[in-house]
Amino acid sequence: MIDCGEGTQLQMRKNRIKFSRLNHIFISHLHGDHYFGLPGLLSTYGMMKRTAQLHIYAHKDLEILLKDIILSFSKNSSYEILFHTIDPNKKELICEDRSIKVYTIPLKHRIPCCGFLFEEKERPLHLNKPMTDYYKVPLYQLNLIKNGADYTKPDGEVIENKKLTLPATPIRRYAYCSDTIYLEKIIPQIEQVDLLFHEATFAEEESARAKETFHTTAKQAATIAWKAKVKKLIIGHFSARYTEDTLLKTEATSIFNETSLANEGDSYEI
Amino acid sequence: MIDCGEGTQLQMRKNRIKFSRLNHIFISHLHGDHYFGLPGLLSTYGMMKRTAQLHIYAHKDLEILLKDIILSFSKNSSYEILFHTIDPNKKELICEDRSIKVYTIPLKHRIPCCGFLFEEKERPLHLNKPMTDYYKVPLYQLNLIKNGADYTKPDGEVIENKKLTLPATPIRRYAYCSDTIYLEKIIPQIEQVDLLFHEATFAEEESARAKETFHTTAKQAATIAWKAKVKKLIIGHFSARYTEDTLLKTEATSIFNETSLANEGDSYEI
Repeated sequence: MIDCGEGTQLQMRKNRIKFSRLNHIFISHLHGDHYFGLPGLLSTYGMMKRTAQLHIYAHKDLEILLKDIILSFSKNSSYEILFHTIDPNKKELICEDRSIKVYTIPLKHRIPCCGFLFEEKERPLHLNKPMTDYYKVPLYQLNLIKNGADYTKPDGEVIENKKLTLPATPIRRYAYCSDTIYLEKIIPQIEQVDLLFHEATFAEEESARAKETFHTTAKQAATIAWKAKVKKLIIGHFSARYTEDTLLKTEATSIFNETSLANEGDSYEI
Repeated sequence: MIDCGEGTQLQMRKNRIKFSRLNHIFISHLHGDHYFGLPGLLSTYGMMKRTAQLHIYAHKDLEILLKDIILSFSKNSSYEILFHTIDPNKKELICEDRSIKVYTIPLKHRIPCCGFLFEEKERPLHLNKPMTDYYKVPLYQLNLIKNGADYTKPDGEVIENKKLTLPATPIRRYAYCSDTIYLEKIIPQIEQVDLLFHEATFAEEESARAKETFHTTAKQAATIAWKAKVKKLIIGHFSARYTEDTLLKTEATSIFNETSLANEGDSYEI
C-alpha cells in the first residue's frame, strides 16, 4: 500500500480488498492526508488477531507521531509492526522480496517527501518447447536452462541457451510520485515505466499557486510523462476546487495522450 | 459532536453538515473508533483557516495521545484547540452556554468511559397575549413577565404572573450512552429524557460475550429505556456480526416499543 489517508480501512472494505494480503505500507510524507488512516488500520489488524509482521516504510518522525496511539491499543498485540526509516532525499532500495524491488524517488514538497518505484526482478526465460523436446533435454535441467544455462548433450555437444529459450516476460515497473513540485530530475529514474502515477493538484492556470504550494499542474505532470516516455500516466490528488474533471484531463492529454484520471476504487492492470 | 471516529469529516461532507457550526466535541472514551477522526478534522479546520476556538472534552490522555500529531500541522494555526479534561467517573457539569448544559454520565467499560446528558436551560414563559392586552401591559415589561414577574398596574393593583402567561416550552433532554456494560445506576440521571441513545453491541443470545467485553445487548438497552421511562430510544454501535438488523430491533421493541436503530446519516428531531 502506498500512503494511507483517513478512511483507508473503510475503502478497503468497500472495495473488498483482503486485509491479510497487505504486508508492506509505504508512506511518502507526513501530511495528514497521507497517513491519518494508519491508527485505524493498525488497530483493526489487532482486533482481527493478525499474526504476520506489518512493515511500514516512512520518514523517521512517523514512528514518533504514532507511538503513543499505537501503544494505547497494542498491549499484548498479536502482531508486530516494524518501522523502517527512509531518507526521502536519497534514491535507494528500501525493500526487496522474491519478485520485486522498491526504490525511493526523491521529490520536492513543503516537507521531506519521496515517491516510490516498484520494479519486478528479472524473470526466467521461457522454454522453447519444440527445441527442448527435439534435443531431449531431461526434466531436471529445465530450470537451469530457464535461468540462462546452455545444455550439454550426453555426447558432449553443447546447445546454446538461446536455441532452447524464448525471451522472458519483460519486467514491469510502476512509479508513484506524490506530492511534488514539477521536478525534471525524476525523469531518468522513471524513464519508460509501464505506469506512472503523478500528482496533478492544479490546472495550468493555477501554475503560480502550484509552485507556491509545491504541487504540480496537470500539464506539468503530462510533460514529465512525455519526457520520461512512460507507457501510461494516471493523474490524481486534485484540488477540491475541480469538481469537473474535464479541464485537467483535456490539459494532460493535449501533452500526453495515454493519461487517465484517478478515481476512488479504480484498478489498473500492468 | 459526540465522539469522532475515523472518517467523520468525510461523513460531515457527505451529509452537508456545516463545518463552521461545530464548536464543542465530546469524547466518551479513548478507543480508536471514538476518536481516530480527530486528527483529520482538526487539520482540515486549519486548512479552512478556522478562527473560532474549538473545545474538546475528553479524558486527560487524549491530549497526550494527539499532542505531537496536532503540533505537526498546527504551527501558526489560525485557530485554538482547547482541551477540557473530564473525569469519566464523576457525574458533573462540564459545559454550559446560553441555552444548554452538558453533564457526564459515568459508564462502565474496559477503559474509563462516560456518556453525556444534554439538557436545555429553562425557557421563558409564553405570554398570554389576550391577557397582557387586556391589562395593557407596556412593552418594556413583557420580558420581565416572561421571566416570571408579576405586573403592577398604574393604579397599584398587582396582576399575578400566572394570569398573564402560559407554560414555557418544556426543556428537552438528550442522553448518549456508549460504550458500557448494562448499568442500572445510570437510570436516575437519564429518567424521562426525550431521547436516549444507548449502545447495543450484541443480541441477548450473546449476553455472556456482552458482559465479558463490557457491552450491552439490545434487550438490556431497551430495559434501561423502559426503566428510565424515556420517551424514545435509539440503539447503535452494533457488532459487525449483525448484518440483519431485524433481530436487534425485534428484541428491543419487545421490551420498549419506541426504539429505532441508528443508521449512518439519520437525523432525529427532539
